[in-house]
Amino acid sequence: MLTFFLEKHNKTPLYEQLYQEIKQNIINNELKADEKLPSKRKLAQHLKVSVITVENAYHQLIAEGYIKSKPKSGFFVLPLIDLMPPQRNTFQQAVIEKVEKDHFLIDFRTNLVDTDYFPYDKMAKIEKEVIQYEYKHKLNDTNHLGDDGLRLQISKLLFEYRGISAKPESIVIGSGSENLIALLVMLLGRDKVYGVEEPGYLKNYQLYQNYGASSKTFRIEKEGINTDLLTQIDVVHITPSHQFPLGIVMPISKRIELLNWVNEDQKRYIIEDDYDSEFRFSGKPIPALKSLDHMNKVIYLNSFSKSIAPSYRVSFMVLPDYLMNRFNQQFSHLICSVPIVTQLTLERFIRDHAYEKHLSRMKNIYKLKRDILIDHLKRANFKSKISIKGEESGLHFLLDISTKLDIDELIDRAKQKNVRLYGIHEYYLNKHDESQRKTLVMGYSHMNEKQLKKAVELLESAWKDI
Amino acid sequence: MLTFFLEKHNKTPLYEQLYQEIKQNIINNELKADEKLPSKRKLAQHLKVSVITVENAYHQLIAEGYIKSKPKSGFFVLPLIDLMPPQRNTFQQAVIEKVEKDHFLIDFRTNLVDTDYFPYDKMAKIEKEVIQYEYKHKLNDTNHLGDDGLRLQISKLLFEYRGISAKPESIVIGSGSENLIALLVMLLGRDKVYGVEEPGYLKNYQLYQNYGASSKTFRIEKEGINTDLLTQIDVVHITPSHQFPLGIVMPISKRIELLNWVNEDQKRYIIEDDYDSEFRFSGKPIPALKSLDHMNKVIYLNSFSKSIAPSYRVSFMVLPDYLMNRFNQQFSHLICSVPIVTQLTLERFIRDHAYEKHLSRMKNIYKLKRDILIDHLKRANFKSKISIKGEESGLHFLLDISTKLDIDELIDRAKQKNVRLYGIHEYYLNKHDESQRKTLVMGYSHMNEKQLKKAVELLESAWKDI
Repeated sequence: MLTFFLEKHNKTPLYEQLYQEIKQNIINNELKADEKLPSKRKLAQHLKVSVITVENAYHQLIAEGYIKSKPKSGFFVLPLIDLMPPQRNTFQQAVIEKVEKDHFLIDFRTNLVDTDYFPYDKMAKIEKEVIQYEYKHKLNDTNHLGDDGLRLQISKLLFEYRGISAKPESIVIGSGSENLIALLVMLLGRDKVYGVEEPGYLKNYQLYQNYGASSKTFRIEKEGINTDLLTQIDVVHITPSHQFPLGIVMPISKRIELLNWVNEDQKRYIIEDDYDSEFRFSGKPIPALKSLDHMNKVIYLNSFSKSIAPSYRVSFMVLPDYLMNRFNQQFSHLICSVPIVTQLTLERFIRDHAYEKHLSRMKNIYKLKRDILIDHLKRANFKSKISIKGEESGLHFLLDISTKLDIDELIDRAKQKNVRLYGIHEYYLNKHDESQRKTLVMGYSHMNEKQLKKAVELLESAWKDI
Repeated sequence: MLTFFLEKHNKTPLYEQLYQEIKQNIINNELKADEKLPSKRKLAQHLKVSVITVENAYHQLIAEGYIKSKPKSGFFVLPLIDLMPPQRNTFQQAVIEKVEKDHFLIDFRTNLVDTDYFPYDKMAKIEKEVIQYEYKHKLNDTNHLGDDGLRLQISKLLFEYRGISAKPESIVIGSGSENLIALLVMLLGRDKVYGVEEPGYLKNYQLYQNYGASSKTFRIEKEGINTDLLTQIDVVHITPSHQFPLGIVMPISKRIELLNWVNEDQKRYIIEDDYDSEFRFSGKPIPALKSLDHMNKVIYLNSFSKSIAPSYRVSFMVLPDYLMNRFNQQFSHLICSVPIVTQLTLERFIRDHAYEKHLSRMKNIYKLKRDILIDHLKRANFKSKISIKGEESGLHFLLDISTKLDIDELIDRAKQKNVRLYGIHEYYLNKHDESQRKTLVMGYSHMNEKQLKKAVELLESAWKDI
């Protein structure tokens, strides 16, 4: 008879100990296929445990497929195919290599926000109330477009700030532009060629390929986009309000040129990426390209990554009606990827005007930071070597440097002083004359006054003799 | 000289009125290309407004590209390509068709949760504290894997509940399994053929194709998976703990058979979708297939959609080390798609044992609901015609009906009594003998005691004479 030592005072239940022991016997082939196990009553007597204990152990072994019960004849071990001997390959011995991210005292990255002035208390209060009073009714809500209320608020913002008339039912909410680009590739087709600006946000160039479509880059010239360069491109992904990273505002003539281009061929589309249009520091906002789109060929894309935080993961897009119909027909089984609590909280945050207040406050703060940084740069010992471009809008500007040193040397010297700089060449896929310009892309939004001062001091010592 | 009527008491600023008027004149071709505009001072005098007003209007027109300033000679209208006449095509007149979703008094859908017993107050308290005290330090966190703390907590849950030893650095967090499947297709390749169970969760069949890969279904037989049917499949996506929707637990011999299959070819992988393993009502949980995976060929996938809510949008996967290295190398520029507040809150929710408590409470509640529903069914006037399967685990079971009516008739009759039922055939891609079985998939988790009773009463009247 099976004999096991079961520990009564162990915190693992007796039935589980028994199940483990029998299972191990089967795996080790000590209990062989078709062997009959003792009856529940007999084994219980033998091991001095209750019948229930044996019953539970047998039940678990049946559930997992180690034994089976034959009515009126008892319990039998099932045949177990031997696990094949391990095929040693290099894969198995892999260990996870640490992903070390560089850390610098000063980092001019462009994708960060200020963390000092976020309305934490207001957001916390709203989020708490949403969970207490609204969440219950939405726990099972899995709309593919996102929450109706949030889409209404976004539609109002678009009208007020961007001159776009978009019905709430034309808006799709997603968790970041990566998510919306995935949906767009599904919707417009993997057979299209997606064009991405160069210089530009090259992650998108990669992203279209990751999702199974083709992508190409097209050059942005000094005057902005040149539609003659859009050969073999079907869908053009552009940043007309504030070209990233050059900072060019697409002039009206180029906008019209581009709208003409898109209307020449039915399969062409424009994706207008309005990533930091909230932050224009002088005059009124430049109207969105979408507001001129009488042909319904512009898909408008934006997110709360700059106005709230990159970790916030809420983006949205406006689809032309016929594309929205296709989206509803083909993809209504998908679930909007933003947690409903986040959506409900953002809805209240906008409806209560807290978003508007935050935005206008941040606009002033970022303008001040920009002014402080530019002021320090213009007084620095290298002031005669620099010129600043694209500073009227957005959370970065360009710093041109006239020096005999090459751009890598400028960046390296700064690194040695614990300052991380980014050259314009990082935004080019291919080497061009343009990409070799001695131009730095300066993101300053996350730094405070003291850090901005320190940054320029460190650059002064790094660039003493440029 | 340009003459406009500007309204001083309008809430639109004077400069903006002036800008609008000049812009309209350019668009209407009343101001022609290369025409010189009056100087700022002259126009200001003429219109009886300040020079600043004219300056701001000109500045905005320059920014948008309607005019340009030539040093020392003044402001000139830029040439404007005419907008092409609208090409009338059927697309433009589209209106958005309403997506009407059916609504029934009773709905046996399988993807809903109970909303009465969620710990709203606890979650609200944690979320509020997280925003007040932790958020500031994480606002700019954009790790591609998700928050370190949350991955640690998930790693602990996996060890305790599923017998899986997974380091936190092997875990990737994403917003729903749609999101993780997108990442897996990028990681394993679009050149692979992804196999999905039939019957099964056919959304995934579509999803792999949406992401640009091929997918095939393979039949699940009465005994479960049969690896002989996995011809031409490279990556098999399965639900071994509780086959969806059949409810079969994959027995140990089939698990070994499948592990042998995957080890035969280097390009093969298993995706173990453990979607509702938390809810096993008798005995201990069935160990995950991943816990037997000595070859590192199993990718484990799960979410909080059943244990928290489908609108919660937090999923995770465990990658074998060599795949994680590849993921880190190729995709570290991506940003985890779950908002950081949600991640930090869930981390605390698990760490404070609130998740564990909620899970064990819901297990009892769902068990009770299952018992009540089965009890009602077994007393119903059609009790002699039914048998119940797969009820030991998960939040649905199968209801087999022996009747001369066909399955569509059964479902239609229920519909007329305001009850929505789902036949097993909805989970088949192709018609088979099996798919024509008179079997219903019964999800009950969202209904309360009263609704469960009402549901069976309505079915009694719908099925009076089956």
